[in-house]
Amino acid sequence: MARAKTNKGRFFEDYKVGETLHHAVPRTVKDGERALYHALYPARHALYSSDQFAQSCGLPASPLDDMITFHIVFGKTVPDVSLNAVANLGYAQGRWLAPVWPGDTLRSESEVIGLKQNSNGKTGVVYVRTTGFNQNDTKVLEYVRWVMVRKRDVDAPAPETVVPDLPKALTVDDLSIPETLDFSNYDFTLAGEAHRWGDYTVGEMIDHVDGVTVEEAEHMMATRLWQNTAKVHFDTSARPDGSRLIYGGHVISMARALSFNGLANAQMIVGLNGGAHANPCLSGDTIRAWTEVLDKTDTDKPGVGALRLRLVATKGGEPFKLKGEDGKYLPDVLLDLDYWALIPK
Amino acid sequence: MARAKTNKGRFFEDYKVGETLHHAVPRTVKDGERALYHALYPARHALYSSDQFAQSCGLPASPLDDMITFHIVFGKTVPDVSLNAVANLGYAQGRWLAPVWPGDTLRSESEVIGLKQNSNGKTGVVYVRTTGFNQNDTKVLEYVRWVMVRKRDVDAPAPETVVPDLPKALTVDDLSIPETLDFSNYDFTLAGEAHRWGDYTVGEMIDHVDGVTVEEAEHMMATRLWQNTAKVHFDTSARPDGSRLIYGGHVISMARALSFNGLANAQMIVGLNGGAHANPCLSGDTIRAWTEVLDKTDTDKPGVGALRLRLVATKGGEPFKLKGEDGKYLPDVLLDLDYWALIPK
Amino acid sequence: MARAKTNKGRFFEDYKVGETLHHAVPRTVKDGERALYHALYPARHALYSSDQFAQSCGLPASPLDDMITFHIVFGKTVPDVSLNAVANLGYAQGRWLAPVWPGDTLRSESEVIGLKQNSNGKTGVVYVRTTGFNQNDTKVLEYVRWVMVRKRDVDAPAPETVVPDLPKALTVDDLSIPETLDFSNYDFTLAGEAHRWGDYTVGEMIDHVDGVTVEEAEHMMATRLWQNTAKVHFDTSARPDGSRLIYGGHVISMARALSFNGLANAQMIVGLNGGAHANPCLSGDTIRAWTEVLDKTDTDKPGVGALRLRLVATKGGEPFKLKGEDGKYLPDVLLDLDYWALIPK
Repeated sequence: MARAKTNKGRFFEDYKVGETLHHAVPRTVKDGERALYHALYPARHALYSSDQFAQSCGLPASPLDDMITFHIVFGKTVPDVSLNAVANLGYAQGRWLAPVWPGDTLRSESEVIGLKQNSNGKTGVVYVRTTGFNQNDTKVLEYVRWVMVRKRDVDAPAPETVVPDLPKALTVDDLSIPETLDFSNYDFTLAGEAHRWGDYTVGEMIDHVDGVTVEEAEHMMATRLWQNTAKVHFDTSARPDGSRLIYGGHVISMARALSFNGLANAQMIVGLNGGAHANPCLSGDTIRAWTEVLDKTDTDKPGVGALRLRLVATKGGEPFKLKGEDGKYLPDVLLDLDYWALIPK
Repeated sequence: MARAKTNKGRFFEDYKVGETLHHAVPRTVKDGERALYHALYPARHALYSSDQFAQSCGLPASPLDDMITFHIVFGKTVPDVSLNAVANLGYAQGRWLAPVWPGDTLRSESEVIGLKQNSNGKTGVVYVRTTGFNQNDTKVLEYVRWVMVRKRDVDAPAPETVVPDLPKALTVDDLSIPETLDFSNYDFTLAGEAHRWGDYTVGEMIDHVDGVTVEEAEHMMATRLWQNTAKVHFDTSARPDGSRLIYGGHVISMARALSFNGLANAQMIVGLNGGAHANPCLSGDTIRAWTEVLDKTDTDKPGVGALRLRLVATKGGEPFKLKGEDGKYLPDVLLDLDYWALIPK
Repeated sequence: MARAKTNKGRFFEDYKVGETLHHAVPRTVKDGERALYHALYPARHALYSSDQFAQSCGLPASPLDDMITFHIVFGKTVPDVSLNAVANLGYAQGRWLAPVWPGDTLRSESEVIGLKQNSNGKTGVVYVRTTGFNQNDTKVLEYVRWVMVRKRDVDAPAPETVVPDLPKALTVDDLSIPETLDFSNYDFTLAGEAHRWGDYTVGEMIDHVDGVTVEEAEHMMATRLWQNTAKVHFDTSARPDGSRLIYGGHVISMARALSFNGLANAQMIVGLNGGAHANPCLSGDTIRAWTEVLDKTDTDKPGVGALRLRLVATKGGEPFKLKGEDGKYLPDVLLDLDYWALIPK
């Protein structure tokens, strides 16, 4: 009885393809969340730092950092999607659909779009398409995520296998760019670097040089701020080794912020093609980042180009090394993220 | 001379029954404090997370978390009440009298309502009734607290003993409920749990399951945010063992936030019947919480019921164990708090 | 090629006397930064804590803490001035020229005003006058700073030596005091101490008594908040001993906040005469502070006096000890700061 009122989370057999999960708790985000984001990560992209700079790019004010939107929308899904997850397997088809402004209230929904029981009969893969909405029910973000979830009862029958068809990358037509965005009068001096869209070539590799050694207090504050409640991030007794696993999104935000050094003008994240958390990150690790330019494309907004970038976070080792001869991620690789960013031409 | 201008704090013989202490420093609280609260504690109660949710409950916007009010009002009393305190002995008759909104400015006053010298002649117990006011001189909180305070001069004569009569618990008539609060259209899905007032029975025990291992940086940031300056929380040389004692209010807020899992709808704290900090909490402790339902009552506001809850925080051990055969708190118990919360019917 | 797009920083031979460096990235500061400042430091000066208190002193609202202005303006200079710095040698002629309000956007420029190659031929001293502006191009702060910077090429010719003439201290005529500031109705009770301008005497020493043991997570959050990116503050592999050097400004803010105890009414910092970071500060150090009253002067604003104060931060040792017989700072001294503050008469 004592545990009757607490959330035990969903198990694999609790998901049905086609059902919609309405996640709690809506969250109003304001300037406090922005300031904390800038205290937790070395975030310096000018569009998210200065109202005047954002106005010079055609926006009414400086929006909240794109990854704040991601973390808040994601955090709400944890109690319904990943409380009993064994592993977060991947992301696809992530699209930022509208900027989030201080004062907006965000909520999330997820549709179950795929299920596949593993051959061991103990776990299965759940595919969800998660959508974040603001207080006007405008979509601000959607993305597909798939996780491996435990079964409650190993004898429960396997559901019909449904695996969604997920394109490897978004095309420029998939990207949602704010209607008024205009980089024609972009101030490269204030932004911090002179490199524009035309200066980047497909195949180019950029070592972002800087590193940050991460601390327990920081990743817990970040993860709580997004109301992500997964035990492994907070409770040293939740893992056999007594360590706290750092929320993968903390590594994403850290690597993205570090990438300012070399990509200061890659201002807005608009698409997430894919991503893998290659190895766990723990307190004391020093996160570094490097980028490979995967693709580039023009857009229909004045002065605005797009770069498709592979952002890799490591905790050591040499830059530009990703996988071993066995095709597996090297042990020092933390994150392999594939995203689209908008940059002035 | 060098220390002539610093505050040495008051000693037992400096207090007179009936006098009022006007505490410094007034504090304007805004969205930044709210964001920090949500980064420091896994706070998720929807009324304090979303303006729209609060509006659906009849409030103009989302107020600041009730414990922010408590911590700020309490913090101001430290330089005048507990700088030379040996122990914080208890709370009683705590009443939240008005919500605090971003932009409000809080200040505190305390009336000395009791004095009792201890038989050892070295210390005494001081009882104060502390009141928090906003910028319009509206009372936002009042509570009684008693602390054991050192004497400056052991030979100073004992004052006349005055011990206030403190009822064990507030009744429903004592509770101050916002005039417009209305839970008739409460959205249980957005709030995160389906359990309503009628689903809780007196005597019911709830294990909140989750745990948080606490860090030095976090409790210091929290305690400074409330401008609580007691040395033992910040200075490793202030205690013989070199450890920093975690502010008891940090444990209250952590336990209250953890209680979301099982009490997600116990939205507003309106009364504090009593509380004891049973054992010290130190960095590295993993805080868990359990609740016993002590009482329940209806209110005159639409859809609003009240639960009287015992919230116990521990740093290990089994849930639902509170005291040993000797009647003393078990060594793993950190907090024993008795409060009234409002919950939809 | 991989590092072609990252900022390698400027070396000694890259600076020319008379040139102006336009620093990136502008930053809009709001209530979130204020709340973080109050969480990171035990800041309690009433003018920066309460809108109503500030209004009673003739200001429209509570401005952001003076040191927030300093840190943000300073942080922007790091990528252009001190990325290859060996040492931060000194400050002079610092003047706070206008309050900064929540919502203001700050940017920085630096003029190179002096150059002097060291006799070893490997390094040189660069003198810059840095100015901070708000979104209306109003100057909010200016100060001179000199740093020792590495040469890229030791064989590069030495520039003509130019050493600016820097007076030891600002005079009252140099101080910029907000036009409407009025301490005639100052509330000493709410401010926390009774000591006014007339109670301080030149030569007086004040031990601020309290101490704070500092943590990695805190100084990194602070330093990131000011978008200061110097590697040594974040990356344990950046120094041979594996420790992270704490940003000197963190020590300034901590010492200033600790000085509340004895100088609660020294509300506004308006001038920085000089300053030296005497020894490195590392996580685990317990920062304490003491003050010597160096000078005092009247001002032309109602009820407003000024004190010139030496603020010394230590990590141990006895108060009031600054230098050894050899004239060098004692090893426990962290900071020796000389500033002007406004205080009610």
